[in-house]
Amino acid sequence: MADLPNKRDAFIDWYLAVVEAANLSDKRYGVKGMNVWPPYGLKARRNLDRVLVREIEATGSEAVEFPALIAANEFAKEKEHIAGFDAQVYWVTRGGLSELDVPLVLRPTSETAMYPVFALWVRSHKDLPLNVYQIVNTFRYETKTTRPFVRVREIHFFEEHTCQVDEPAATERVRSNLGAFGRMAVAFCLPYLSLRRPEWDKFAGAYYSIAFDIPVGGSRTLQIGSVHHYRENFSGPYGIEYEAADGSRRHVHQTTFGLSERLLGAIVAVHGDQKGAVFPSQIAPYEVVVVPIPTAGAEDAVERASREVSERLKAVGRRVFLDGSDERPGAKYYRWELSGVPLRLEIGRREAEAATATAADRLGRKERIALVELEAAVGRLLAAFDQELTRRAEERFREAIVPAAALGELVGSETARWIGWCGVESCGHEVEKAIDGALLGTPEADTVAPTEAPKACIACGRTDGVRWAVAARPL
Amino acid sequence: MADLPNKRDAFIDWYLAVVEAANLSDKRYGVKGMNVWPPYGLKARRNLDRVLVREIEATGSEAVEFPALIAANEFAKEKEHIAGFDAQVYWVTRGGLSELDVPLVLRPTSETAMYPVFALWVRSHKDLPLNVYQIVNTFRYETKTTRPFVRVREIHFFEEHTCQVDEPAATERVRSNLGAFGRMAVAFCLPYLSLRRPEWDKFAGAYYSIAFDIPVGGSRTLQIGSVHHYRENFSGPYGIEYEAADGSRRHVHQTTFGLSERLLGAIVAVHGDQKGAVFPSQIAPYEVVVVPIPTAGAEDAVERASREVSERLKAVGRRVFLDGSDERPGAKYYRWELSGVPLRLEIGRREAEAATATAADRLGRKERIALVELEAAVGRLLAAFDQELTRRAEERFREAIVPAAALGELVGSETARWIGWCGVESCGHEVEKAIDGALLGTPEADTVAPTEAPKACIACGRTDGVRWAVAARPL
Repeated sequence: MADLPNKRDAFIDWYLAVVEAANLSDKRYGVKGMNVWPPYGLKARRNLDRVLVREIEATGSEAVEFPALIAANEFAKEKEHIAGFDAQVYWVTRGGLSELDVPLVLRPTSETAMYPVFALWVRSHKDLPLNVYQIVNTFRYETKTTRPFVRVREIHFFEEHTCQVDEPAATERVRSNLGAFGRMAVAFCLPYLSLRRPEWDKFAGAYYSIAFDIPVGGSRTLQIGSVHHYRENFSGPYGIEYEAADGSRRHVHQTTFGLSERLLGAIVAVHGDQKGAVFPSQIAPYEVVVVPIPTAGAEDAVERASREVSERLKAVGRRVFLDGSDERPGAKYYRWELSGVPLRLEIGRREAEAATATAADRLGRKERIALVELEAAVGRLLAAFDQELTRRAEERFREAIVPAAALGELVGSETARWIGWCGVESCGHEVEKAIDGALLGTPEADTVAPTEAPKACIACGRTDGVRWAVAARPL
Repeated sequence: MADLPNKRDAFIDWYLAVVEAANLSDKRYGVKGMNVWPPYGLKARRNLDRVLVREIEATGSEAVEFPALIAANEFAKEKEHIAGFDAQVYWVTRGGLSELDVPLVLRPTSETAMYPVFALWVRSHKDLPLNVYQIVNTFRYETKTTRPFVRVREIHFFEEHTCQVDEPAATERVRSNLGAFGRMAVAFCLPYLSLRRPEWDKFAGAYYSIAFDIPVGGSRTLQIGSVHHYRENFSGPYGIEYEAADGSRRHVHQTTFGLSERLLGAIVAVHGDQKGAVFPSQIAPYEVVVVPIPTAGAEDAVERASREVSERLKAVGRRVFLDGSDERPGAKYYRWELSGVPLRLEIGRREAEAATATAADRLGRKERIALVELEAAVGRLLAAFDQELTRRAEERFREAIVPAAALGELVGSETARWIGWCGVESCGHEVEKAIDGALLGTPEADTVAPTEAPKACIACGRTDGVRWAVAARPL
């Protein structure tokens, strides 16, 4: 089987090759940019969704599901928002054999689907906060080059929408979302930047936007999620009002929290190596693959031991695959490494006779474990695997964003850059011009910025009111 | 609060009122026939999906997900199929600001999305059987009156699609699906008919179709699922071929198995009563609601005991809601009965002092349970509840389909009817005319038909080759 393209030198080729070879996504579908989720890739997505659901429900959010089609008149109600999406929505204009009276938009995001109904659900301060989320597919008519998970036209999407009594309560919900994302990212073993976007780059219709970015090689970054405070920008046009305790009528303040299948792309991109994908244990389609190594005379013992190991691990809820096919062990090792399985348990004659297994993790570490302590040992090895995966990712993360002191250093930069910024828009645009990319924003409290304070604005040289910001070239 | 309309006299009104009052679906969305899943209704749907996934995966099927949009040219490949759906598909004709070169269909079902990709996935007999399913939303431009869950324009849909080596293997898969549906129906406490549809009523493009129907009052029935054998009808046009062990190239034989949110409608319709919804325990959003009954001086003890009961049940995986609101107990009973929760645990002073709870199930049966055996008692009560729910449904089911011996009995019939049928189409049409409905088909082995053999064809009087069939008025 052919080697993968080099991750460092040919990142995109490497990424596409891993996604294809590991059966994560099939892009041979008849509509460009809309891909098929094959069984293996869909298992990873389900695990990812499970983490999202667990963490968001722990913060008191409940699942809902709104229709995929939005009437044109509802879609048009919030002007900035519609302007932001106008060029990239799909329009349904015909139903059966006739033209529709009112054309329908396939949701690119669900503000305009949900908010007319929120106006019915929210009556009194007793109905607040309203914290609901949905996991659905959204649709965007992308004109840029599409890439599996990262930029697609049908997007597997997580969106929380909330209504709060006032601005501070909404800011509090934003903070709660940042905390929830932090806990999700632990499961993904994924260090990230949490940045407040500059005014000129906030979400269409938002009061402010916080986005999560990761470095993905060179000066490139990838946005993997966002949280927005809408203030009353939508509740005004959509009439989402409540009766306060004092009898007055007020508009709710709203927030949203958006994530997508792009997270899966980020996990592949950050953790993968020259052998293929590497999945954190909570996301891996299988946490453990058991590979029997039959040798003459010991076939039965090896098969029996392998089956026992697999059954015992399943009984404690582990996702296990027993690879009993008749390929040779080396070919199996190769394929399961390509597929990113965290832990391989090899069972041959020696292991079967001694009631042990040889455990090899996807980072290349090996040890013998005794079957009497199988369940505990697997738990320990998977935890150690996640820890080491995180450590390595954090090491690369730190090296991927380097402080810069002068605009000249941004030109052709080989990493993303921490820069001092005075907050003035024109200075921001100078930064963007120099790096040929974007000023991603200023760090939120949950992001580790350089410890020393920034000396001066990299553009105008001002020294007061200067903050760290990140400059990079977003994918 | 107003009483529900009478279920027997005003079934549709009763159904709509229960769906609304129990918060199962919100139809106040801006596109007619596309409804919102509020938190409570979505919990029931998730539980229903969990049963489907459990039973289909137990038969070796794996989850996949195909795009929602299908290129017009792929959609048109199987002539009968496209003819069957032509009048009820939504067309996407515009992307962003421009017309699409190739219009796209929003999937009404996924044959034409999946099969071009199956042609890539299936190469050799080693790739077979290919058994995959997806749970996605489908879209149909319904022109008939829409009803929550039962007839909607965006449909929550389960569809298994399989490829088999030959016709007998495909028939075997059909049988496996019938078995899986039987196990699902146990979880729904739902007796049903499993009927092979007559030739003139099979699915567009099928070789034969088996459908599941339930009686829903009077002579009305509702189709709640179907299994189809496609033979080579799709694998020909879509080129799904494999190399057999002998080196020859053959088309696969295909099957599909379809279910939808209509199952949830069936559960509401069959089990509900004048107090509201009644959910089987596996489907209920909450299996148990704990209602504290605080009395002066015992508030703390009651609250403590209620919390302990709730926590202990959650710890063993039960879905429990502790209703600690300050409504009076009677109002809570009313609302949770309306919402269909199988089991209510009341805890007042007497219970707190004696370490007991009063358990009332949704069918009106009450008993005291000791908290020392709380978990076991709740398990026992829920099992007994499901059993009694099933028994009552089966009793009504038997009364709802009555044998008829002459066409005249079908006219204005107040039940569905078992009839003798010779299998000739013209006789079938006479039956359909008499009952002003449909000949639903002949029973499969998994359906209980009358024990005595049918005497003669109800239409032509022939006595040889006569089989039982069901005549009814499908909703």
